[in-house]
Parts: sequence; C-alpha cells; structure tokens
Amino acid sequence: MEPFTDIARLSLNQITTQRWSVREAVDGCVRAGIPFIGLWREKVAETGLRESARIVLDAGLRVSSLCRGGWFPAATAAERQARLDDNRRAIEEAATLGTDVLVLVCGPAVDRNITAARAYVEEAIGQLLPYAAEHGVKLGIEPLHPMYAAERSVIVTLAEANQLARRFDSRHIGVVIDVYHVWWDPEISLQITEAAGHILGFHVCDWLVPTPDLLMGRGMMGDGVIDLRGLRSAVDAAAYTGPIEVEIFNRTIWDTPGDETLALMVRRYLECV
Amino acid sequence: MEPFTDIARLSLNQITTQRWSVREAVDGCVRAGIPFIGLWREKVAETGLRESARIVLDAGLRVSSLCRGGWFPAATAAERQARLDDNRRAIEEAATLGTDVLVLVCGPAVDRNITAARAYVEEAIGQLLPYAAEHGVKLGIEPLHPMYAAERSVIVTLAEANQLARRFDSRHIGVVIDVYHVWWDPEISLQITEAAGHILGFHVCDWLVPTPDLLMGRGMMGDGVIDLRGLRSAVDAAAYTGPIEVEIFNRTIWDTPGDETLALMVRRYLECV
Repeated sequence: MEPFTDIARLSLNQITTQRWSVREAVDGCVRAGIPFIGLWREKVAETGLRESARIVLDAGLRVSSLCRGGWFPAATAAERQARLDDNRRAIEEAATLGTDVLVLVCGPAVDRNITAARAYVEEAIGQLLPYAAEHGVKLGIEPLHPMYAAERSVIVTLAEANQLARRFDSRHIGVVIDVYHVWWDPEISLQITEAAGHILGFHVCDWLVPTPDLLMGRGMMGDGVIDLRGLRSAVDAAAYTGPIEVEIFNRTIWDTPGDETLALMVRRYLECV
Repeated sequence: MEPFTDIARLSLNQITTQRWSVREAVDGCVRAGIPFIGLWREKVAETGLRESARIVLDAGLRVSSLCRGGWFPAATAAERQARLDDNRRAIEEAATLGTDVLVLVCGPAVDRNITAARAYVEEAIGQLLPYAAEHGVKLGIEPLHPMYAAERSVIVTLAEANQLARRFDSRHIGVVIDVYHVWWDPEISLQITEAAGHILGFHVCDWLVPTPDLLMGRGMMGDGVIDLRGLRSAVDAAAYTGPIEVEIFNRTIWDTPGDETLALMVRRYLECV
C-alpha cells in the first residue's frame, strides 16, 4: 500500500477545529488546500443554513458529509416522532449543503433493552429512507465503539451496520467506517470487504495510549496504535474512492490554533494514512 | 428466569474489596455467608501463598478463580520467556490455592500489530496448556471490553475467545464471561450458546451511565444498564452451574467499608442477577 502523494481526498471534519465557525473552517481549508469539509449541524445552525451553503460553494469546497442524524430511540411516541422529524430536517439540510451523506448515530437505548433499541433503529431508518432518497441523500450508519453502547449508539460493530444496511434494498443506505470505532475488531478486514459497495465514508484519527478520556481522548493520526494504513488498504480494496475525513475529539487539539492543526493533519495524512 | 433464592453460587472477587487483605476478605465472606472467593495474585503474595491457602481452607471457603495470568506479548524473546515462566508460577499458585481456574488477560500488543499479537497469544497458550493440565488447572480466556484492546487484551469478543479455546483440543482451556466486557455485543446470546461446555467463570457488575472512567468506572449490579438477568439466563441455558463472581473496579466502592459492600452485593445479587 503506497502512501498518498496528494490530499485530493482529504476532508476536515469540522469537529476537529471545534472553536472555528463554518466560515473560519472553510477559510482554513482553503489556506491549507484541503478540498473537502465535513459539517456539523450545530455549527451550520450558528451560521445559518443558506449562508453556510453559500460560504462552502463560494470557496469551491465540497461537503463530504453532514454530522449527525440518528438518536432515534426515545421514551415516548411523541418524542420518537420529534426525533424522526428532526432527522427529516437533517436530510433537507444535507441536500441544501450539497452533500449526499448524512451520518447517523444509532442510539442509545432508553432502558436496559439494547435488543429492542436495535430493532427500533431499523424501524426508524425504514421510515426515513424514502425521504432521504427523494432528497438524493444517503444515510450513513456509523457503528460507534462499544464503549459508547450505553450513551450514544446501539450499533457498535461494522458487522451489525452492514447487516442493517443490507436489509434495506436501497442505494440510499450504507455505512461510515471510522477507524477509532472499529480498529479493535478481529473481524474488521472481513467486514470492510463485506461493506464493499455501500461504504459512504471513511474517518481517521488515532487511539491514544493511555486513553485520556472516553469521549475527548482521540488522537492525531500517528500518535496512537491504530494500523491506519492497513485499514485504508482494506477500504481501498473494497473500492471506496471517496473523501477521507479527519474527525478528532480532543481538547488539546481544540485549543491549538486551527491553521497549526490543519498543517499537522495534512502532514500526518500523507505520512500515516 | 427466576431470581436466585440463595447465594450458594456467589463469589467475592477480592478486587471488589481492594483494601482488604486475603484474611480480611475471607473473614468478610464468612460473616456474609458468601461461599466462594476469587483471589488476586498480588494479594496472595502479600499474605504468602501457603498462608493464604490455609486461611481459605480453614474458613471453609472455596476459591472460584485466581486472577490473573496472561500478559503474554513482549518486545523481546527474553521478556516473552519471563512472562511464560510467570504464568507457570501462576498455575502452581492456583493449584496450591485449590482452584482449578486461572483467569488469563490476553494482551496487549507491543506495537501496532494487533493481529500478530493475537497469533502470539495462541502460541503462548499452547505452550502453557500442558503445564496447566499437569496441575489440574484450567486456563480461562477472558475477553475484555474493546476499550482495553490497546492496553490490556487483544482478545475483545467472546466469539474470538470461543474460537481460540476451541482450537485446542483440551478440557483445560475455556472462557470466562464478564458481563461488563461483553454486554454490548450483538452476538452475545449466540456466543454464550457457543461457549457451552467450556465456560469457566461468570463475572457480574454493571455498566454505569455516564461512565466515570475507563478503568475504575464499574458499578454495583443494578446501578447500570446491563441486562444482568438476561445474560445469566443465557449462561444458565449454556449449562454453566459454577460460581458467579462479583468483580468491581470502583474507587467509591473501594472506599466503602467492606462489610457494607458485601451486604449490598448479596442484596443486589438476589435482586438483579
């Protein structure tokens, strides 16, 4: 597997530069020559949806994905309906922003019944899918690390995400593979192969040792133990040719000036991914 | 699935009362009517091996397991040999203490190559197994939660532990199932069924929400989100009839007087497991 010689597929997931607004992140990408950006709904709402779309378009960037839909399970029927309505808005936002991928965080359960929550996630996706297809948006099921099973996502393996995606006979559903969430899986190579044809995104960062925090402990590529090139090789072999997003939740990185983060991110992408 | 009406299968894994010596933990179990204890090598070493064995025997307790062997991968051949030698001593200690289960923590990798580390774990177990069999000790592969994949164990799913155990044609190898490590797994019911016949231990505690810490964040049964009775039911259906150990890493519980912890543990075992 050869290193990349350019950053034609690199995307800044804007959570990596959490202090930056949409405009600041877009300008930063332009300065660094990064061609894609992954946007967050909260940031887009701060700037305004149409203004965000205009900023990105004017800068000549492409939007690799919108984070995040999902969060389907809820205690009451009214709340579940509100979540579905919110996901429909997220689909509209993705279409307006010019991306065809809405990343889904599928959970958590509201009680001790993780099996029932998984069944409901499938039901909710089934309800959303026609709306997504109408808008030309694909729903990307992102399996999260099992340490988030109680608080964020009941979908915690790529095997499960693949099976879930395959149960819908639609080209508007697929999976998003983030190395941080799946690197530990003894089946990961097999499951990346199984995902061929419905991989909607590939996210990179690193797993730090020791892990400083469950949520804010992700590291820059090369600072941890993940076999990044091995996983990229598997995703390449599965014929994924789309953008590669760098998505890092880490207070130290957030406190670093954005241009420095982007420069390091570019260097490590070329060295490690 | 009926609740237990007695504590005939209950075991105190002594890490739960981390401040207690072997003698204090044994006395505490006697006062609480708990018939089994799971011992830790560090604690046994503090008291002395033969003295620990005598204390347990005199009290009429049975030892459900010894924690922990394993930690096989190392950077040099000499260090790997030293780890194997240490595991042979752990086997001898288990035999002296009167338990037939040595719990193995299988990892971590010493580099970014988790696949190679998994292969070496298998090789190391193969080297130890005849010695374990000679001593009448069984090696219990405990899959740890994937969040420990970098720092503790490269074996992180019950599926993988089952496959590993089955590759040795021996009744001296099996798996130890700890709800904390496996509850998130969409395959867990299936894999507990697959483990039938080689389940060497069943450990309970709970997964707290929010999770306060990667290592010290385990909770008392009933304080978290794990479907304990569902998992116990699956283990019952797999014909496991051995001791059920309560193993909790939690600073607050460690700071609680041991007798209080044991009383709560008995109540929650009857209510929740």
